[in-house]
Amino acid sequence: MQAFMDENFLLTTDTARVLYHNYAAEMPIIDYHCHVSPQDIYEDLVYDNITQVWLGGNFYGDHYKWRIMRACGEPERFITGDGSDYEKFLAFARCLPKIPGNPVYHWAHLELKRYFGCGTLLNEDTAPQIWTLCNEQLRGGLSVREILRRSNVTGLATTDDPLDTLEWHAKLAADPDFGITVRPAWRPDGLMNIHKAGFGEYLAKLGGVTDMASLRAAILARMDHFSAHGCSASDHGIEFLECVPATEAELDAILAKGLRGEAVSCREAAAYQYACLLFLGGEYGRRGWVMEIHYGAVRNINSARFCAMGADTGYDAIAPAVSVASLPVLLDALDGRGCLPKTVLFSLSPNDDAMLSTIAGAFQAEGVRGKVQQGSAWWFNDTKPGMLNQITTIASLAPLDNFLGMVTDSRSFLAYPRHEYFRRILCELLGKWVENGEYPNDPARLGRLVQNVAYYNIKEYFGY
Amino acid sequence: MQAFMDENFLLTTDTARVLYHNYAAEMPIIDYHCHVSPQDIYEDLVYDNITQVWLGGNFYGDHYKWRIMRACGEPERFITGDGSDYEKFLAFARCLPKIPGNPVYHWAHLELKRYFGCGTLLNEDTAPQIWTLCNEQLRGGLSVREILRRSNVTGLATTDDPLDTLEWHAKLAADPDFGITVRPAWRPDGLMNIHKAGFGEYLAKLGGVTDMASLRAAILARMDHFSAHGCSASDHGIEFLECVPATEAELDAILAKGLRGEAVSCREAAAYQYACLLFLGGEYGRRGWVMEIHYGAVRNINSARFCAMGADTGYDAIAPAVSVASLPVLLDALDGRGCLPKTVLFSLSPNDDAMLSTIAGAFQAEGVRGKVQQGSAWWFNDTKPGMLNQITTIASLAPLDNFLGMVTDSRSFLAYPRHEYFRRILCELLGKWVENGEYPNDPARLGRLVQNVAYYNIKEYFGY
Amino acid sequence: MQAFMDENFLLTTDTARVLYHNYAAEMPIIDYHCHVSPQDIYEDLVYDNITQVWLGGNFYGDHYKWRIMRACGEPERFITGDGSDYEKFLAFARCLPKIPGNPVYHWAHLELKRYFGCGTLLNEDTAPQIWTLCNEQLRGGLSVREILRRSNVTGLATTDDPLDTLEWHAKLAADPDFGITVRPAWRPDGLMNIHKAGFGEYLAKLGGVTDMASLRAAILARMDHFSAHGCSASDHGIEFLECVPATEAELDAILAKGLRGEAVSCREAAAYQYACLLFLGGEYGRRGWVMEIHYGAVRNINSARFCAMGADTGYDAIAPAVSVASLPVLLDALDGRGCLPKTVLFSLSPNDDAMLSTIAGAFQAEGVRGKVQQGSAWWFNDTKPGMLNQITTIASLAPLDNFLGMVTDSRSFLAYPRHEYFRRILCELLGKWVENGEYPNDPARLGRLVQNVAYYNIKEYFGY
Repeated sequence: MQAFMDENFLLTTDTARVLYHNYAAEMPIIDYHCHVSPQDIYEDLVYDNITQVWLGGNFYGDHYKWRIMRACGEPERFITGDGSDYEKFLAFARCLPKIPGNPVYHWAHLELKRYFGCGTLLNEDTAPQIWTLCNEQLRGGLSVREILRRSNVTGLATTDDPLDTLEWHAKLAADPDFGITVRPAWRPDGLMNIHKAGFGEYLAKLGGVTDMASLRAAILARMDHFSAHGCSASDHGIEFLECVPATEAELDAILAKGLRGEAVSCREAAAYQYACLLFLGGEYGRRGWVMEIHYGAVRNINSARFCAMGADTGYDAIAPAVSVASLPVLLDALDGRGCLPKTVLFSLSPNDDAMLSTIAGAFQAEGVRGKVQQGSAWWFNDTKPGMLNQITTIASLAPLDNFLGMVTDSRSFLAYPRHEYFRRILCELLGKWVENGEYPNDPARLGRLVQNVAYYNIKEYFGY
Repeated sequence: MQAFMDENFLLTTDTARVLYHNYAAEMPIIDYHCHVSPQDIYEDLVYDNITQVWLGGNFYGDHYKWRIMRACGEPERFITGDGSDYEKFLAFARCLPKIPGNPVYHWAHLELKRYFGCGTLLNEDTAPQIWTLCNEQLRGGLSVREILRRSNVTGLATTDDPLDTLEWHAKLAADPDFGITVRPAWRPDGLMNIHKAGFGEYLAKLGGVTDMASLRAAILARMDHFSAHGCSASDHGIEFLECVPATEAELDAILAKGLRGEAVSCREAAAYQYACLLFLGGEYGRRGWVMEIHYGAVRNINSARFCAMGADTGYDAIAPAVSVASLPVLLDALDGRGCLPKTVLFSLSPNDDAMLSTIAGAFQAEGVRGKVQQGSAWWFNDTKPGMLNQITTIASLAPLDNFLGMVTDSRSFLAYPRHEYFRRILCELLGKWVENGEYPNDPARLGRLVQNVAYYNIKEYFGY
Repeated sequence: MQAFMDENFLLTTDTARVLYHNYAAEMPIIDYHCHVSPQDIYEDLVYDNITQVWLGGNFYGDHYKWRIMRACGEPERFITGDGSDYEKFLAFARCLPKIPGNPVYHWAHLELKRYFGCGTLLNEDTAPQIWTLCNEQLRGGLSVREILRRSNVTGLATTDDPLDTLEWHAKLAADPDFGITVRPAWRPDGLMNIHKAGFGEYLAKLGGVTDMASLRAAILARMDHFSAHGCSASDHGIEFLECVPATEAELDAILAKGLRGEAVSCREAAAYQYACLLFLGGEYGRRGWVMEIHYGAVRNINSARFCAMGADTGYDAIAPAVSVASLPVLLDALDGRGCLPKTVLFSLSPNDDAMLSTIAGAFQAEGVRGKVQQGSAWWFNDTKPGMLNQITTIASLAPLDNFLGMVTDSRSFLAYPRHEYFRRILCELLGKWVENGEYPNDPARLGRLVQNVAYYNIKEYFGY
């Protein structure tokens, strides 16, 4: 029996251990898509207690943990309500032992070990001492920047609205004492969501938009702003994708409705969004930005809770019906215009894995490794079996050596051990293949592959 | 090499063995959804031979076994036809060795062991002696009640039409010598299926229905009848689910068509069914009944055989196109009205597993453990890999400690070893996690979790 | 640690080794669906170098390898362009080590071992010596017929257009020195694709077609021709399947449009195709031909590359939205007419596995083992995990003893070790079940099952 979460956690063969300890562990982290606050980094936020950084409250929130606490029947008061931070920590501690097989169980204990040197299992009995231990360290120097340093993070990309001033990115870039690259990433959902309330107001803030031509000009100006701040990636959260062609006049008419705050039909929204994706995708291609597409989520399905708490509070799900029949058409249209950007595809539905890798395989380019490829197992699939399935599928259908590896997609500054978790799972899989005679015992070659997947591929693909 | 189906069947680690033998094995069974006959229980049916209880004939039938026999090319005469019971038993015995990896192989041999003390492998050679051995025991005391007692069943819920008199449930409840709780469960498919032949006749039997208001009154009267007989669960077999809103006047008009036996459009049927689900779901919530939703099946796809044999004879399949985009909308509407009942979601498509658990996670409630949750792997997924996948997915996305565990969904009185089969698979999975250092070696805590999943959760959730 | 690809490759238990070496290995191969050239067989083609037989060029091409090379960023010049054969071999050798977990890695090294006696790992360093070694053998006697002989192939079915003269099949049948059965298979996609360019021209070649009646007559004449050349199987590549009923007059009108080269609507195409499938399926049933249905692929999604290179060059994918809700309706209609042929169902979407096996289970027949059944894991699923999942699913839902086992579906004469690969995976799975006590330790019975799946089932089902 292997001890719980010892140094060989998830590593059951000698080969896996060699690959992880000798090759993977030392690699820095570039977290190419996440949702942390650049302001918190610049201001080097110091937390008063672990609930603030780990469970959250009114602003930041860890919806993974919240969902578990709700499913355990904990009152919302101890989750996001007016319970004290200590009560919230106790409530989480009560729930934690009840979730064997859940990534939160592993993440929580990995984070306690890596950041707080705490190897004690968290439960209701141990919560008081762990509370004290963690808070002492948080107040005693474990600030946001110190967390990033200890995590061996050398680069990360936040997720930013096109209207963002990027002032915190500018300040970070100008800070001579801070050695970590913090880039913005372009998330233009607000520009795209013509079917949603607030679209007209949003475009009003963009300024000067009266038709598609002026919209494009306004977008280009914002993209220049992002380029000037080091942006090398966009990110699209797509609800539907239909390749509805439309003339410029038709698009102008649809846009005019949106500007006036009028409702547009599904087909009009699809036409507008397709036109935007073609324009934006082409621009990404020309600028060398990576296009990330996230889809397959249905958001805020509990409308009472959404009204009370807003988005990203733990009320999203995998979409019951995922339809991206248009994805190959979009990629083909961009490719036909000679401006297909490097593209990373993420679906929230695990059923899409094999499909995505086969679609990606049809849009490659000379001199680029894995130009279009599937991203890592995302959100609800960011679990040990989820990652294992996805790595296996990717390896079955594409060169594993091209894979962009892990990304946290997290709001938490304590999420970086998920890279360690991923790397261990990757090494374990490769180790099994070697031990079973399915791949030659060539640690140097596999070690290089592990380092590519853990770090070098991201560095090269995004140009860090 | 482990001997076939020995005491450590499916248990390969010490931890798994401890969890199963010291914690799981002793737990009673509450089979919260099945299709056995309460009359057979009350009358304490004695079978003349094993074919009657195991393979069936004109009335009862084991479609799992029938499908295997048909796929082996056996003549229908030896399956459901006029062959003798002995010929049918021989035919099944011929087929059994040909299905390694099939749950029927395990179920059959587990049932022979547990009920008949027979460790001999069943095949054409051994069939004569096993035939004699089993029949002697069936005639010699292994009646329906004795089977239930030996299975350590303490409660079960049958599946009943709203029109059912529930007379056998009443007789069982009044029987001082019978210690097992036998509850009815409310299966209102007949009320819902306005698009099917016979709807008008069905409502005529319900009596006094002329519009939605009188329909609701009639339903409430029947629900009161079910409540009076201990009902705590409903069960819906849903073919499609579209949340089509409609006014009371529109619904009255649709219902009037149905009452007259006229055809309704798909959209009309959807509107009517959605209205019924909202009404019924709300009532379940108010009464504290559990709502079970089974979907994803396509039934009677072989129409010649359906004409000849009727439903539930082995001609159903997983639906090629499963669409439940409306499921979150239904749950949200009930939740918004403050009357969302405890709900268990079952899809026949294994592709829905992750989606269902994420939807469920958005509809939890204070003080309830796993208010909405995914049910156990069902029917065609009720296999070792199917259960393993489903438990793994549930654990990845929710507190495993909340899981309602196993249910046979069976027509057979010999199906209870499927609980044992499930419990062994659960313990094996937990044991692997412990042995691999993925969960701490804490048998007492895991033992309690195993007992929760095997028994206590069902007891608490359904109020047995 | 097991050495890479030694004699016990993929076989980790004693039982698996016994099953493979004592039962599976000796079985001949009947490759019941592939795309090799009967002319190449008749003319006993001798290759000048390994690139010609392994990677291809303008005519033959190995799109599995091409996709990997493209994803590694290799220039198209070294893939299908004007690079020399040696440069192409070097380029592939550069890519090969980068694909652990990919079937091409295993296939390539198995083929080097089995045909060229070469146990050296292929990479950039070893490529020159392997190039020389392989080419010497190809020029020195390793012709197409010799490859077939060494592969222990005793039968195969090519894939042929109804217009094909089948002259090479006739010549092969008349060759007294050639002991291998080479059958044509009927692939009537050209007859079906009324919605595609070239349909009118295609039917013009068929001759004399003016309406459905004359179309049927013309088809029957071609089927007689195929029957006369030993055909026992058809193969349909289906893009969509909708069971749209239509009268003869309506069908005549749709066909007339197609004959004139006019566009038909989706619904018209569906009606025409459904009528064709009913007619053809019925004829297959009457003639005892097997109907194979392949679906779930989306082809030529990169239109620039399709224009440049044509079909089957590596630009296909798993269809994003697979809809075969009509499949049970088609099978039921044929069954209702008493002429359902033996049918093998293949989906490119791994999500369809469980569904297909459950549909198949509803259409069985007395005296036939597995009349309708799911085919082996196909194309993008033809991987170790893909096959393992599919065999496991099939075993869970049907008698594994009926399974038709492996088929290469390949254009390559070096693809036969994929049968070995499949057989090893099958034996490993069975071995695990025995070692875990999930199936009795009865090597003779399991050995017979292995031989059925590897060979005898195909022989019986297709009448070789």
